[in-house]
Amino acid sequence: MLPRMLEIVDHGSIRELRLARPPANALDPGLIQGLRAALATAAEAGGLDAVVLSGTPGRFSGGLDVPALLELGRDGIRAAWHAFFGLMRDIATSEIPVVAALTGHSPAGGTVLALFTDYRIMANGPFALGLNEVQVGLPVPDVLLRALTYVVGTRHAERLAVSGLLIDPAEALRCGLVDELVPPDQVVPRAVAWTRELLSRPRFAMTDTRRRIRRPLVQAFDGLDDEALEAVVDLWFSPETQTTMRALAARLGKGRSGG
Amino acid sequence: MLPRMLEIVDHGSIRELRLARPPANALDPGLIQGLRAALATAAEAGGLDAVVLSGTPGRFSGGLDVPALLELGRDGIRAAWHAFFGLMRDIATSEIPVVAALTGHSPAGGTVLALFTDYRIMANGPFALGLNEVQVGLPVPDVLLRALTYVVGTRHAERLAVSGLLIDPAEALRCGLVDELVPPDQVVPRAVAWTRELLSRPRFAMTDTRRRIRRPLVQAFDGLDDEALEAVVDLWFSPETQTTMRALAARLGKGRSGG
Amino acid sequence: MLPRMLEIVDHGSIRELRLARPPANALDPGLIQGLRAALATAAEAGGLDAVVLSGTPGRFSGGLDVPALLELGRDGIRAAWHAFFGLMRDIATSEIPVVAALTGHSPAGGTVLALFTDYRIMANGPFALGLNEVQVGLPVPDVLLRALTYVVGTRHAERLAVSGLLIDPAEALRCGLVDELVPPDQVVPRAVAWTRELLSRPRFAMTDTRRRIRRPLVQAFDGLDDEALEAVVDLWFSPETQTTMRALAARLGKGRSGG
Repeated sequence: MLPRMLEIVDHGSIRELRLARPPANALDPGLIQGLRAALATAAEAGGLDAVVLSGTPGRFSGGLDVPALLELGRDGIRAAWHAFFGLMRDIATSEIPVVAALTGHSPAGGTVLALFTDYRIMANGPFALGLNEVQVGLPVPDVLLRALTYVVGTRHAERLAVSGLLIDPAEALRCGLVDELVPPDQVVPRAVAWTRELLSRPRFAMTDTRRRIRRPLVQAFDGLDDEALEAVVDLWFSPETQTTMRALAARLGKGRSGG
Repeated sequence: MLPRMLEIVDHGSIRELRLARPPANALDPGLIQGLRAALATAAEAGGLDAVVLSGTPGRFSGGLDVPALLELGRDGIRAAWHAFFGLMRDIATSEIPVVAALTGHSPAGGTVLALFTDYRIMANGPFALGLNEVQVGLPVPDVLLRALTYVVGTRHAERLAVSGLLIDPAEALRCGLVDELVPPDQVVPRAVAWTRELLSRPRFAMTDTRRRIRRPLVQAFDGLDDEALEAVVDLWFSPETQTTMRALAARLGKGRSGG
Repeated sequence: MLPRMLEIVDHGSIRELRLARPPANALDPGLIQGLRAALATAAEAGGLDAVVLSGTPGRFSGGLDVPALLELGRDGIRAAWHAFFGLMRDIATSEIPVVAALTGHSPAGGTVLALFTDYRIMANGPFALGLNEVQVGLPVPDVLLRALTYVVGTRHAERLAVSGLLIDPAEALRCGLVDELVPPDQVVPRAVAWTRELLSRPRFAMTDTRRRIRRPLVQAFDGLDDEALEAVVDLWFSPETQTTMRALAARLGKGRSGG
């Protein structure tokens, strides 16, 4: 029951999940649900050893589909965030490696997904990434702050998150937000090659070490109870957030796109 | 009741607090108290959104005024450290951003203040900074070790603190002790510009994210109870510390300066 | 009662402990015990202020002597790991500084010892280092993951440990696994010089700061109780580990060498 907005390409035992929801691969509830289902299927399917999460040329994901979410009421927003946090947790706790092939722009939710993967390969080109939530009026939830800190350390995490900076691939490499830059058409092949190398390791030793060292990424969700989720929903409906996001959505205008 | 050793320059809603206590902008109890009062005033004043902490050309601050402190007894030293830790905590917990414009030399206490700010811009020139406390015979209190670790990570924090290294701006940039280098006469303008950019963000989203991600800097003070303060006072009066500091003060000699 | 596989060279008050067990300076139970005894002697001897841990030209240590360990039964392996963890803890908790002079290849156990020292100086040449345990089928124990994270941070620690990467000195410097590169014949002199500089600091201030900031390295052993040790022994005897290691040992073949 894979939604058409998600394409599957198997490279031997490595399954590429390619975001393909024009124009921006923005994450709406349907795509989030589709991704969760596809990850679960990959982990349970016989013969699949890893997942590469990719996008279309020039665009990994524009992040949450703000215009779509703005049409939802409180229950819908609660469900959307519940699903989005669930997707992050699925990646963080995946028993098989998940590698990010950042084929282009990856702001906000695009970067969020990458934070929880095993490794981040980025297209070297005029693309932007980063947790720019603050720029669109949304305080960054603690789970994301902890994951960002895991990846880039405390100083860069503070600098990037508080200003909501969008940065280019070169700066992302310098501060550790991505692990490698390659030419755009090499992102997926390189991600597959990196993953294949990882899978060449004695499987139990690799898997057991991986599970234990990634514990802090899983513990990032420890405080995410119903109350914390409700606080995120409250923030979403705060006047500043609504005003900023509606202005953004209006700017994106007719060419309905992600933010 | 601002002491004359502290100059105020308002850049729109950004207040620059400029250390101006010749010759070294050394921190004595009066200047520490003046800074705390000025920070409190800025936070409470209507129309002020951030603080830039600067110094004079070539000199941010020489750190604690050792010769002055050496004249104090146990009660005076306890009060001085209480106030100095209080100043650090004021910066760490400030509800409005505090940005360090390191206009020149910033050893010891000069670096300490910078650790707790939001961002550190350093004058590119023949200037020294670093936690050189060990070189003057003073063990580095845990609060400072935790803040240093927050900024540069565990490995560099150990390397810098245990040897009490003074480093130059280029090395400080490499290990993350400062965030940017600019020509000396651009330090304050750049600090104001960086702060202005930060203030352009949706205010609640920025402030809320900032408060949550900076928690570890605030938690650095968790263990700082009366007993821990008393231990710092004990260390100050230990024979090695007194001997080393008095030798330093004698070397600084007639041209009474900070250390 | 120093085993002949360990040479002692005193540079003033700095004692160099030089691994000298041909061909690979591999760590067998005898060498591990010898190192522990030599460290204890150095710490207790009058007139010694620090230790430099070095190897032979081109070879610091090949790590645990896998062929030798493969001949041991469960009790022998338990004793070997108990001693190896004990050696790590001895370095982590040493009251006098211990500096790593990585004179050449330092895979696996060679890197492990370095992680717990005060500072790592590496020979710049065609040498490999890194925690390649996963490549030989051995999951990396939590103690090592915590020490690796202390030295290189979470992102690099995950990347290096899960893939079991062996890297060259240049990459080790870039990711912080070593602190300095020097020409091979300068490794020991530079380590001695660095240590001498450290020892020039006021002793109590240096020692007290050092002890407190290195606490996380000591706390890495907190969970290492009998049960955790038994789990490491279980892993050693797991089919994958045994198969991989015996294949490795067969490859090393007649020229019995460490792995």
